[in-house]
Amino acid sequence: MRKLDQLSLAIVGLTLVAPSAGAQTDPLPSWKDGSSKQAILKFVADVTKEGAPGFVPVAERIAVFDNDGTLWSEQPLYFQLAFALERVKALAPQHPEWKTQEPFKTLLTGDVKGALGQGEKAILGIVAATHSGMTTDEFAKTVSEWAATAKHPRSGRLYTEMIYRPMLELLGYLRAQGFKTFIVSGGGIEFMRPWTEKVYGIPPEQVVGSSGETKFEMRPTGPVLIKEAKVSLIDDGPGKPVGINRHIGRRPVLVFGNSAGAPEMLQWTAAAAGRRFIGIVHHTDAEREWAYDRTSHIGKLDKAWDEAVAKGWTVVDMKSEWSRIYPFDK
Amino acid sequence: MRKLDQLSLAIVGLTLVAPSAGAQTDPLPSWKDGSSKQAILKFVADVTKEGAPGFVPVAERIAVFDNDGTLWSEQPLYFQLAFALERVKALAPQHPEWKTQEPFKTLLTGDVKGALGQGEKAILGIVAATHSGMTTDEFAKTVSEWAATAKHPRSGRLYTEMIYRPMLELLGYLRAQGFKTFIVSGGGIEFMRPWTEKVYGIPPEQVVGSSGETKFEMRPTGPVLIKEAKVSLIDDGPGKPVGINRHIGRRPVLVFGNSAGAPEMLQWTAAAAGRRFIGIVHHTDAEREWAYDRTSHIGKLDKAWDEAVAKGWTVVDMKSEWSRIYPFDK
Repeated sequence: MRKLDQLSLAIVGLTLVAPSAGAQTDPLPSWKDGSSKQAILKFVADVTKEGAPGFVPVAERIAVFDNDGTLWSEQPLYFQLAFALERVKALAPQHPEWKTQEPFKTLLTGDVKGALGQGEKAILGIVAATHSGMTTDEFAKTVSEWAATAKHPRSGRLYTEMIYRPMLELLGYLRAQGFKTFIVSGGGIEFMRPWTEKVYGIPPEQVVGSSGETKFEMRPTGPVLIKEAKVSLIDDGPGKPVGINRHIGRRPVLVFGNSAGAPEMLQWTAAAAGRRFIGIVHHTDAEREWAYDRTSHIGKLDKAWDEAVAKGWTVVDMKSEWSRIYPFDK
Repeated sequence: MRKLDQLSLAIVGLTLVAPSAGAQTDPLPSWKDGSSKQAILKFVADVTKEGAPGFVPVAERIAVFDNDGTLWSEQPLYFQLAFALERVKALAPQHPEWKTQEPFKTLLTGDVKGALGQGEKAILGIVAATHSGMTTDEFAKTVSEWAATAKHPRSGRLYTEMIYRPMLELLGYLRAQGFKTFIVSGGGIEFMRPWTEKVYGIPPEQVVGSSGETKFEMRPTGPVLIKEAKVSLIDDGPGKPVGINRHIGRRPVLVFGNSAGAPEMLQWTAAAAGRRFIGIVHHTDAEREWAYDRTSHIGKLDKAWDEAVAKGWTVVDMKSEWSRIYPFDK
């Protein structure tokens, strides 16, 4: 289905479409006609038109997207944290010491809020305990199983279904126009890679995220890479341009984020020569998704919003600009 | 020109070619008919034939290549080291302390051998002094200028012309068959990225190499990334599978290397499930290139060679299997 969509989009890109073709050829059907949709369509038209002043060659059409809150939801807590909490439960029998050790002790009584309320160090401890000490292959298998089965507490849907349909359309549209789409997320790179290709059409080599060090080890059964507890990159805030430079090696021409973790990435992109598109997803829909911004403990949108307004970046109002949120929405 | 070549190769891949078409449609004209060429053609045919037992979907067709000694020459010393030595000379006026400080003192007298002979620490000092302390943009500009002008002492050609024509053909052939081609080199990632797209058709985001840490900094003129002297990854030996995992996130199906720096990458690739192609370039041509293997101080080929023979990997004999070495060869 997607292949057909892309093919037809590619054809749209190559031929002049009669205005009457209208709705049938709309590459962004879940985006209501509004300022964001118009800004996207105009930008893409400008940079893909050979000979035009804003033209960007195909090789340089790099588009990057934050993940949590930009491509999928991030409430009531980051989905990767939900994964980590599930892993603590699953691993508890092998860790009798957790019965007396915080934050595991509190967590294992079922008091998630109390455990996470112990602060950043406690959360990092949970992540380290569940994301290191195994081979990369073992971890990928665990994540794949979680992605295929774990369900969101509110919707009862798979977490991997809690993705934004308008953004899927945008990813497909950009690819059909010669863009290479990347994820640049504060989330774990090895947590995302096992499912991003299936879910977003973004292959592992185009996923940038926070990462730990790995170590090569020759075992009797063959070579493996061991996931260590040592941090390699925190791909958040000022770490996002660092991650982009490390993995992509050139500045994106289009970037979408949603929160406090993104301003440096947005600035870094905006500062480059040539035309750039800077987009921000604003969570305004308490009914179909969640509404939060300046004071949220997750996905806080504050300074980046002010900067967006000041600089004329595109701020997407989910409630008024997206006709559907999730793929399972009617 | 390359685009036309690729197009015709793509067409060859899609249609049945009459045997009489022969030389005209040979995707590897600089490879003499021999065991290596046959092994490559058979492998690619096997993994690209839909429905065949060895079939590999396009998304998984990852091909990785070492750079020094695999895609371009590495004698009489690694080209990146030649770049670093040139930079020392250029930067010397800003570093009066180098007049009394080794290895710079010896180097600035013109005694390259004496300076490099001071050992690994001296060499790392030269690299650190020439590869850090500037912005990534500034460094890329310096490298681009070097790549466009610096000439090899023996051939008098640009270093960026000292690339292997048979490997260029192989890269183009693999891409035409749906492979994504990557460099995985012990060389510096930021030293390679400014020119690999033009020279090999490999874009920056598909270049993996040794790297230093970078730091985001907001300057009055805009955001920059500063190259620090701190190592992030030594992409050599056991660091090569680490680099592949960090940047690509899945095991290659085809890998080409040439030296002691590659065995872990070759083993890591060979150990994966499914069909894999492991190739080694053996430098046997003292006349047209260089001849060296077990006892060389650069590009030593020893254990990996034994392993290749034992496991039936493909060892390319440059002298007898390549009809041309460089693009400028007749």
